[in-house]
Amino acid sequence: MLLKNNMENPFKKIAIIGLGLIGGSIGLAVKRFSNEIHLQGFAKSDLTVKAALSRGLVSEAYLDLSQINSDIDLVILATPLSSFASIVKEISPNLKDGCVITDTGSAKSKVIIEIEDILPESVHFVPGHPIAGTEMSGPEAGFADLFDNRWCVLTPSKRTNLDKLNDVKAFWENLGAMVEIMDPEYHDKVLAITSHIPHLIAYNIVGTANDLANVNKKEVVKYSAGGFRDFTRIAASDPIMWRDIFINNSDAVLEMLDYFSNDLDKLKSAIKDNDYEYLENFFKKTRNVRKNIIEAGQDTQKVDFGRGD
Amino acid sequence: MLLKNNMENPFKKIAIIGLGLIGGSIGLAVKRFSNEIHLQGFAKSDLTVKAALSRGLVSEAYLDLSQINSDIDLVILATPLSSFASIVKEISPNLKDGCVITDTGSAKSKVIIEIEDILPESVHFVPGHPIAGTEMSGPEAGFADLFDNRWCVLTPSKRTNLDKLNDVKAFWENLGAMVEIMDPEYHDKVLAITSHIPHLIAYNIVGTANDLANVNKKEVVKYSAGGFRDFTRIAASDPIMWRDIFINNSDAVLEMLDYFSNDLDKLKSAIKDNDYEYLENFFKKTRNVRKNIIEAGQDTQKVDFGRGD
Repeated sequence: MLLKNNMENPFKKIAIIGLGLIGGSIGLAVKRFSNEIHLQGFAKSDLTVKAALSRGLVSEAYLDLSQINSDIDLVILATPLSSFASIVKEISPNLKDGCVITDTGSAKSKVIIEIEDILPESVHFVPGHPIAGTEMSGPEAGFADLFDNRWCVLTPSKRTNLDKLNDVKAFWENLGAMVEIMDPEYHDKVLAITSHIPHLIAYNIVGTANDLANVNKKEVVKYSAGGFRDFTRIAASDPIMWRDIFINNSDAVLEMLDYFSNDLDKLKSAIKDNDYEYLENFFKKTRNVRKNIIEAGQDTQKVDFGRGD
Repeated sequence: MLLKNNMENPFKKIAIIGLGLIGGSIGLAVKRFSNEIHLQGFAKSDLTVKAALSRGLVSEAYLDLSQINSDIDLVILATPLSSFASIVKEISPNLKDGCVITDTGSAKSKVIIEIEDILPESVHFVPGHPIAGTEMSGPEAGFADLFDNRWCVLTPSKRTNLDKLNDVKAFWENLGAMVEIMDPEYHDKVLAITSHIPHLIAYNIVGTANDLANVNKKEVVKYSAGGFRDFTRIAASDPIMWRDIFINNSDAVLEMLDYFSNDLDKLKSAIKDNDYEYLENFFKKTRNVRKNIIEAGQDTQKVDFGRGD
C-alpha cells in the first residue's frame, strides 16, 4: 500500500450518504489518510447509524438528510442507484456554492442524465465508481484498505467541471486507489462484461439449483465444492444494490447477455454433437485469459477454487 | 484432518494411471497413510513420468501400460474419461483374478456401461469420484491432503461386487475422504448442477469476454476484480478433462442447461421490464443458499471474492 500523504487534500468536510460496505470503507479510509477531515454520515436505519458510530466510520451520523451541514465540500452517494435522484433533490438546496457531489454507483450513463437533470447550477457532480468490494454488506463489512491499489473509474459528462474532476481524482488517490478516467457509455459496457453479467449468471445458476425438482437441495449444498460454491459467494452480494445495477445498466447488460447466450448455444451444440475438438479449443482459449489476469496483477496464482478448509 | 490409521488396508499394491492433480494427490495421500503400499504410476508423457518420480508421487513410473505388475490389487484410473475404455482394454489381460479397478471420473453412467462392456469376469470395477480439486493440473499440482474431509462418491452398478465396494470405501477413508454411495444416474444429475454447469458457464463467459468487439481485452483484464476474475479461475481448469466430462455427461448437462436458460430468460425479461420486485426477490432467495452452504461447512464465511492482494 502506498499512502500519498504529500498530496493535497481538496475536501475538508465530507458527507457520506449510505454507510454500508462502500460508504463505511470510505469513512475508514478517509480517517486513515487524515484525522483532520470532518465526516458526516447518513443511513436509512437507526441500527446502521448506531453501528457506524460505534465502529467510528464517521464522526457524526444521522437518519435525516436535512441534517446535512451547509459547509460540506464533498457529498459521496454510497447508496443503491435507485435512491440517487431523490437524495440529490433533497440535499441540493442545503449545499453551498461549489460543493461537489460524487457517487460510487456501478452503472453510470442513466444516473448521470438523471442527476444532471435536477442538479442546481451551483453544485458540481463528478460521477465515480470504485471497483472494489466483497460479497458482504452493511456497516460491519467495511475496512480501511478496501480501495488500496484498486481501480476507481471516474466518468465525466460534458458538463463535468475539470477542476472538480481532478479534486475527486486526488481524493480517491488519497484513499489508496488508482484512478482512471473513462467515457460513461464505455464504462457501462466494460462493467457489464466484467461484473454485471458474471453476477447475473451467478445469481441465475444459484436460483436454478434452488428450484430443481429432480435433485435434492441438500445434495446441492453437500457437493457444492465442485464449482457451485464459488457462484454462491458472488450471488450473496447485496440484493437491492444489484437489482438497481441491472435496471440502471439494462442496455449494456442485455446486449452482453445476447452474446453470452449465443456463445452458450454453440457450446450446447458442440456437447450434443460430441464435438471434442470445438470444446477442447474453446477451453484452451479461456485458460489463456486467466494467465493474462494473473500477469496483470488482478489475481494471484495461489490456488483458491476448491479449497477444503 | 482425521487419519484413520486403525483401519485395515485392503490394497497392498496399487497402480495409478494418470499422474496429474488427482493421480498425484492420491499417490501422496497413500504414502501419508502408509509406507508399506507399493505404488506403480503411469503417465502419457516422459516429462510427467520424470516429474512424478522426482516429487515422489509413486515408487516407480512408466509410459507403457504393458509394464503393469501382474500382482496389482487396485488400479486407479485418474486420466480423462475418454481414455478409460482403451486403458481397461489394454491392462485387463495382465491383471490377476480379483483385481479391482476404480476411477476418479466426474461423470459415471456412460463410463460404467463402456467399462463393464469390456471388463473380464475376473476383474472388478468400482466406479468412484472424489469431489476435490483445484484449477491447477499436472504432476506438480497434487498435494497429500487434497481429499481430507472431502466427499468421495462411489456409484456401484448392478454388477459391482459389494465386498470390493467396501474395500474401495475403506481405501478413500484412509486417504482422509468421507465416502457416500450413490446411484450413478443421480450422481450425474447432482454433479451437472453443482459442478458441470458452473464450469460450462464460467468457460462461456470467459469466451464471450475474449471475443467482444466493442470492449477492449485489456480493459476486461484490468477491471476483472468486479466478478469476472473468479470465473476465469474456474475456467482455467484442465481443458481435456472438461471436454470429456461434458461429452460423458451430456444428458444431464443439457437438461440442466435448459433449466438454466429458461431461468435466465426470466431474469432478462425482468430487467427489460424494470421489474424491481422480481429481481429483488430472486437475489434475496439466492443469498439464502449461500447461508446454507456455509452452515454445512462447505465454505467459510471468510471474505474472498474481490480480495485485492
